[in-house]
Amino acid sequence: MQEKKYVYPFEQAYGLGKELLGGKGAGLAEMTHIGVPIPQGFTITTEACTLYYDSGKKLPEFLINSIYENVKGIEKVTGKNFGGKHNPLLVSVRSGARVSMPGMMDTILNLGLNDVTVAALAKETGNERFAFDCYRRFVLMFTNIAKGHPRVEMDKMLEHLKEAKGYKSDTDLDAADLKGLVAKYKDYYKKTFNEDFPADPYVQLIEAITAVFRSWDNPRANVYRKMNNIPYSWGTAVNVQSMAFGNKGETSGTGVAFSRSPSTGEKHVFAEYLPNAQGEDVVAGIRTPLSIEELGVRMPDVYRQFKETIAKMENHYKDMQDMEFTVEEGKLYFLQTRNGKRTAAAALKIACDLVDEGLISEEEAVLRVEPKALDSLLHPSFDSKVLKTLKPIGEGLPASPGAATGKVAFTAEEAHKRHAAGEKVVLVRAETSPEDIEGMVASEGILTMRGGMTSHAAVVARGMGKCCVAGCGSAVIDEEAKTLKLNGKVYTEKDVISLDGSTGLVYDGDVKKVEPELTGYFGRMMAWADKYRTLKVRANADTPKDANQAVKFGAEGIGLCRTEHMFFDKDRIFHMRRMILADKLEVREQALEELLPYQQSDFYGLFMAMKEKNVNIRLLDPPLHEFLPTEEDKIEELAKSLGLSVEDVKARISFLHEFNPMMGHRGCRLDVSYPEIGRMQARAIIRAAIQAQKDLGHAVTPEIMIPLVLDVKELKFVKNIIVETADEEIKKAGVKLYYEVGTMIEIPRAALLAGEVATEAKFFSFGTNDLTQMTFGFSRDDAGKFLPDYYATKIFEQDPFQNVDTRGVGRLIKMAVGEGRAANPTLHVGVCGEHGGDPLSIDFFHNAGLDYVSCSPFRVPVARLAAAQAAVKAKRAAAKK
Amino acid sequence: MQEKKYVYPFEQAYGLGKELLGGKGAGLAEMTHIGVPIPQGFTITTEACTLYYDSGKKLPEFLINSIYENVKGIEKVTGKNFGGKHNPLLVSVRSGARVSMPGMMDTILNLGLNDVTVAALAKETGNERFAFDCYRRFVLMFTNIAKGHPRVEMDKMLEHLKEAKGYKSDTDLDAADLKGLVAKYKDYYKKTFNEDFPADPYVQLIEAITAVFRSWDNPRANVYRKMNNIPYSWGTAVNVQSMAFGNKGETSGTGVAFSRSPSTGEKHVFAEYLPNAQGEDVVAGIRTPLSIEELGVRMPDVYRQFKETIAKMENHYKDMQDMEFTVEEGKLYFLQTRNGKRTAAAALKIACDLVDEGLISEEEAVLRVEPKALDSLLHPSFDSKVLKTLKPIGEGLPASPGAATGKVAFTAEEAHKRHAAGEKVVLVRAETSPEDIEGMVASEGILTMRGGMTSHAAVVARGMGKCCVAGCGSAVIDEEAKTLKLNGKVYTEKDVISLDGSTGLVYDGDVKKVEPELTGYFGRMMAWADKYRTLKVRANADTPKDANQAVKFGAEGIGLCRTEHMFFDKDRIFHMRRMILADKLEVREQALEELLPYQQSDFYGLFMAMKEKNVNIRLLDPPLHEFLPTEEDKIEELAKSLGLSVEDVKARISFLHEFNPMMGHRGCRLDVSYPEIGRMQARAIIRAAIQAQKDLGHAVTPEIMIPLVLDVKELKFVKNIIVETADEEIKKAGVKLYYEVGTMIEIPRAALLAGEVATEAKFFSFGTNDLTQMTFGFSRDDAGKFLPDYYATKIFEQDPFQNVDTRGVGRLIKMAVGEGRAANPTLHVGVCGEHGGDPLSIDFFHNAGLDYVSCSPFRVPVARLAAAQAAVKAKRAAAKK
Repeated sequence: MQEKKYVYPFEQAYGLGKELLGGKGAGLAEMTHIGVPIPQGFTITTEACTLYYDSGKKLPEFLINSIYENVKGIEKVTGKNFGGKHNPLLVSVRSGARVSMPGMMDTILNLGLNDVTVAALAKETGNERFAFDCYRRFVLMFTNIAKGHPRVEMDKMLEHLKEAKGYKSDTDLDAADLKGLVAKYKDYYKKTFNEDFPADPYVQLIEAITAVFRSWDNPRANVYRKMNNIPYSWGTAVNVQSMAFGNKGETSGTGVAFSRSPSTGEKHVFAEYLPNAQGEDVVAGIRTPLSIEELGVRMPDVYRQFKETIAKMENHYKDMQDMEFTVEEGKLYFLQTRNGKRTAAAALKIACDLVDEGLISEEEAVLRVEPKALDSLLHPSFDSKVLKTLKPIGEGLPASPGAATGKVAFTAEEAHKRHAAGEKVVLVRAETSPEDIEGMVASEGILTMRGGMTSHAAVVARGMGKCCVAGCGSAVIDEEAKTLKLNGKVYTEKDVISLDGSTGLVYDGDVKKVEPELTGYFGRMMAWADKYRTLKVRANADTPKDANQAVKFGAEGIGLCRTEHMFFDKDRIFHMRRMILADKLEVREQALEELLPYQQSDFYGLFMAMKEKNVNIRLLDPPLHEFLPTEEDKIEELAKSLGLSVEDVKARISFLHEFNPMMGHRGCRLDVSYPEIGRMQARAIIRAAIQAQKDLGHAVTPEIMIPLVLDVKELKFVKNIIVETADEEIKKAGVKLYYEVGTMIEIPRAALLAGEVATEAKFFSFGTNDLTQMTFGFSRDDAGKFLPDYYATKIFEQDPFQNVDTRGVGRLIKMAVGEGRAANPTLHVGVCGEHGGDPLSIDFFHNAGLDYVSCSPFRVPVARLAAAQAAVKAKRAAAKK
Repeated sequence: MQEKKYVYPFEQAYGLGKELLGGKGAGLAEMTHIGVPIPQGFTITTEACTLYYDSGKKLPEFLINSIYENVKGIEKVTGKNFGGKHNPLLVSVRSGARVSMPGMMDTILNLGLNDVTVAALAKETGNERFAFDCYRRFVLMFTNIAKGHPRVEMDKMLEHLKEAKGYKSDTDLDAADLKGLVAKYKDYYKKTFNEDFPADPYVQLIEAITAVFRSWDNPRANVYRKMNNIPYSWGTAVNVQSMAFGNKGETSGTGVAFSRSPSTGEKHVFAEYLPNAQGEDVVAGIRTPLSIEELGVRMPDVYRQFKETIAKMENHYKDMQDMEFTVEEGKLYFLQTRNGKRTAAAALKIACDLVDEGLISEEEAVLRVEPKALDSLLHPSFDSKVLKTLKPIGEGLPASPGAATGKVAFTAEEAHKRHAAGEKVVLVRAETSPEDIEGMVASEGILTMRGGMTSHAAVVARGMGKCCVAGCGSAVIDEEAKTLKLNGKVYTEKDVISLDGSTGLVYDGDVKKVEPELTGYFGRMMAWADKYRTLKVRANADTPKDANQAVKFGAEGIGLCRTEHMFFDKDRIFHMRRMILADKLEVREQALEELLPYQQSDFYGLFMAMKEKNVNIRLLDPPLHEFLPTEEDKIEELAKSLGLSVEDVKARISFLHEFNPMMGHRGCRLDVSYPEIGRMQARAIIRAAIQAQKDLGHAVTPEIMIPLVLDVKELKFVKNIIVETADEEIKKAGVKLYYEVGTMIEIPRAALLAGEVATEAKFFSFGTNDLTQMTFGFSRDDAGKFLPDYYATKIFEQDPFQNVDTRGVGRLIKMAVGEGRAANPTLHVGVCGEHGGDPLSIDFFHNAGLDYVSCSPFRVPVARLAAAQAAVKAKRAAAKK
């Protein structure tokens, strides 16, 4: 049996792919293959990383031997000797995961140096200063990066030396200075770790490689992975590469280059060059690099080769490249290349340009833009130049993007009032509740002390496209005293703060904003997305304002209108509460009669905004107690206005209390108990539709959605209420109106029995929020307390409320789609949970055969692009088979 | 196309089955077939009932015609004329569902009478008194039963007449009296319904038939169906039968007969006979019937024929028969026969006797006893003779069977104290919470004001085999004043009450009890059950006492030990609370160290009780806040004893608060956050098992069960904690101990991903309570408020927490069993939810291929029998195919 290979020299690795080699390793193999000059070396594969963890965080003996053999390979190619007394081989050790991961370990340069090899290097280059400069860098990097020890003390030693000698720059240090510094660093190392600095280059190498593997599991890496949906199981590769020295003097140097502008996408090489330096000097930003044209002046041949190679690489990769290069005594090396990170604006322009240049197809262009990145183009944002100069006063979760500035308001009521008086306010709450809706609408943005990305504030704010920073734990809010303590300062109603919903940062005072520009590139990309996607994209919208915004962003209908949000308005809540507190049908019907005109006018607004597009309206969903006041004085006020005793009101509130409201008396269960509620809502919808049809002069298409269904009999019961009422209204009006009645699939049982349920439904809409809650047995409101433990133990790598759980919840969805369609071939199927705007989830929904996704208006462009990517990917995967 | 037949004459209906004919109709067809003399007639099928409801509660024209034709058939057979001026035909109209249903409509006799036919009847029988006796009975029954009008006013008319005339008995009334009464009844009818009493016999007939169908949906029928798991869709049949008259004089009479004693099962005919009477007189109990031997004296030929026919029918039906018969002028008719209802004791004896008599097989005998009926044999019960003399003071739900008498205790603490002082107490609470456990253990029985069959009190009491009456709404409890108001009387700590957990009735004072006798018949039946069942039966038991009880009842192991119940004891709760309130690992570990010996000794007791049988112990399940006090003074006390500030304790309690605790931080989620809890529990289990093995001298088999698992990674994580700890303990002790680690399947996702989960589990145990909650999205604690609406609308016919939902939850179970076993062929699979003791659910579990069910100890015999029935039925169904 042939043994598995875990180590590949660059020149033998071409075509093995990023999965095995990591991005950096694959790039080096490919550059070798297409003839780009690189320092030779080898890649230790990502599988070796898995092996390391499976072996109890140790490198197995055979792997160490294989690494040693490959070092011999570099010795042969370069003619240098690793740890040798003559012509010593020095190497760099770099991590390289499948995708670039800033959370991972940095590079270690000059590995292989010790007191013997440094002497040889000094002698053979005739440059003692260079040799000891390499040495002190290596000791520092090894201590800091491989051993994970902070560099602050070692940096101080360098600073003290410069001060003592009166030097201004590192380059002022001479060989003796550097020699002394190396000795000091090594003393420090010994004191810190109770052992000598390792002199054996092989020991250095194995420690450095182990450190890379170890870094795959460090906290920064874990956070980055979670943020970017990178599976832990991928592992990282390690690249060991012979050194090219940019610090050998004035004909040497190092730099970074982008083949196009990463911030605007302009087609010109964007590069910086630092003579007589190693890579870390560029990153550290101590010395100011030269413009790349300066290289052309100093070494025209090198510059020409540089430009040619970059053009060659872009043509090869057909994408904007981000490269590191080094010039060693007039000889150019490229150290790495990768597809460059870019702003959303740049991504759009580059993709369009590449199509125009004939390098990529439209389909390929669609794949080149990260859908989530579009988000930053849709909201006004703070001027990034101004932001750089400011220190935030607090940090929470970037719950809903946008930039908001306003005076602090501590209650929803106050926010509402002050907004009405023309003031711009930011609502600051410990946490929000449905009672705060009106105040949230009236605010520029919302800041909460508690709650996560899926807290009430966050979900509602995203739905509104309103800026929200949630869970800013350092904020101390005193709602009675109306003060907000943040960063040592006390803010009152008179103080202005600014929230950045895209970063979660909070700033003192007003911050300059810039309006979003949806340039021509955005339009072109969206047109391609619409051309290639098959999944329709609708929006979740509760108001005409949201609906208009959604249409502007390309929504093809409303996938979810939550009617409960309409009941919290001051004029309406009284009737709602009267209805809830009534113990007689007549009183409930009277109260509902009062609510009807409000609902009707809301729905009318939606139909007028959406015109001929489908408008899906969900019947009342939350448990009734959510509409009742909780504070003593509000209860008294309510009792008084209803002519009831406080005791009676309290008794009713207490009766309505639920232990687990999520699984309580809500959704269509309300219509089973109180058919008059469904009847009123059906009447309001149909009357509004009839009026809108008349005013628009064309048909409108209402869809009436029954929530929380778990059995076909239940659906049929509620549907009958709706249909009877609707048909009566239509008959009375003497018009024609086509409407559909369907159901949400959000209870596992409804998914399991979808074949039956579908016989009574025109459509299914997956409510993936609740479906996830029930399938996991997770309360979204409570899971925040223990989910961190699930991430820490890697039981979960992703938040199932962010990315749909394709295995568990996904299985239910696929079953329900298949069995539902089998029972009712004309059934149309969509999703209206939070996942409808998540690109990863959209990919799943496309493959599960859904007809549409519905998301908040500001997510519509994201969803359009994600849907197109899903379609292109699926097509390619099918073609591969 | 041949039209469907909805009406069958008895002589053409043999073999069509109860499903179509109803029980009564099938019996009449069968009696005709085997030559038992019956009055002829016809059956309108159960499908006609469905047709009636599908036609908007109307009888279609063609069905009415078919009924008329069949009336002609009776006319032909009997030579009488329906509505005729000569030799008039009178008929009875009776409902007859597939199973006997007391909630349904009663019989209408003598239908066909009007002023014309009554005259003919009087003339042709020469018995005017008889004719008008029939007539007044008919008008009364039609008004009362067909029209649904109370009979109280009409009864008064009869009483007034008797008083006025100075009569003692109905038989004193003469023809003129009866004639006058008919006139009064008809006047009353007209006044009540604003129309004449219908004179047309055909109109009478159709109204009566319609009334039977209508009665299928009356509230009494709905309640009975729900109690007895009878589907609404079955419908009822109607039987129209020519009258045999028992009221024609002294050679006529009527009676009821059982072929064996329905209360003891003794093999002798048990019958009563009332001369010169119609059926309703027997039921009404106004006149005292004669012993059947008297019939032998009066009419020896009739008596001999009577005895022969009964023997013939028992031989034919091979079961105890319950019959109605009438003698008309010396001629014997049987009006109906059915398998007789019987007490549990009688059922056992009859089944055993029938086997001994060679009439039925053992397998058949197993099917002859209603498993739930065994329950009444297992608990001491009130003396039924004494009960008859008492009036209950209140009524709640029969939440947990048994008979309890004691002085009223208003708090768990008080119950505990007074029990310790030797007093017998009944715990009376508005509702119970986990804090009350100790008090519940100490009480004879529990009475709650609120809560249903699945409330905390009910579930825990059933688990303990403790008598409980739940949700006694008329009880007014003042916990502060320590008073219970019931039936107008105020009960204090000094007053004695008695609870009947089998009926839900509450009595004043002490009521005489009788001990259960598990006679030889019980043992024989259980032996057959064990012989034919394949499903093992375990018990849910938390204490050695429960475990011993379970073994006595034949449990083959413990299927669920809930470790949380062990933490509420006074000595332990302090450490538990200290653990929960700790913010440092060390403090938590210290507190757990204090709890360990308690747990260990509890487990030791279980192992000693169960000997070599499997003992399945579930790790801590409820959310931690359930262990914390909620009352102000208790919080202060706790803070003081822990040396913490009240604010800190309150803050922690508030932090632990959950919006939906059912879906919160509980089950194995606790072990993910606090592995030290699982570690302590594993240590306690293993140490106890090692000690028990030593003391018993043979191996014990602990199963450690991880609750609330939703992902294989989560199971693996917690399992690793358990296995590491367990193996360490075993190694330290230097012994051999086999133990298993498995998981509950109670989260839908775990069932959906069972194939993965099974790779890390030795066993699955379905927690059908939680699985039902999550699959339905129902909180068991809250559903009580809206489930009545679901029954009223017939969306649900059964409580899914009583009978497992075979379609939704059942689909998940079948998927999980199949995919789990495919992934791990040695997986063993059981169920430990409340459904484990429910016969209907057990039938499903047998067919789903489970290895065992686990239920409360008192349910074990029920489950053994139900499991045997499931096996026999499945075998027969397979043979049929």
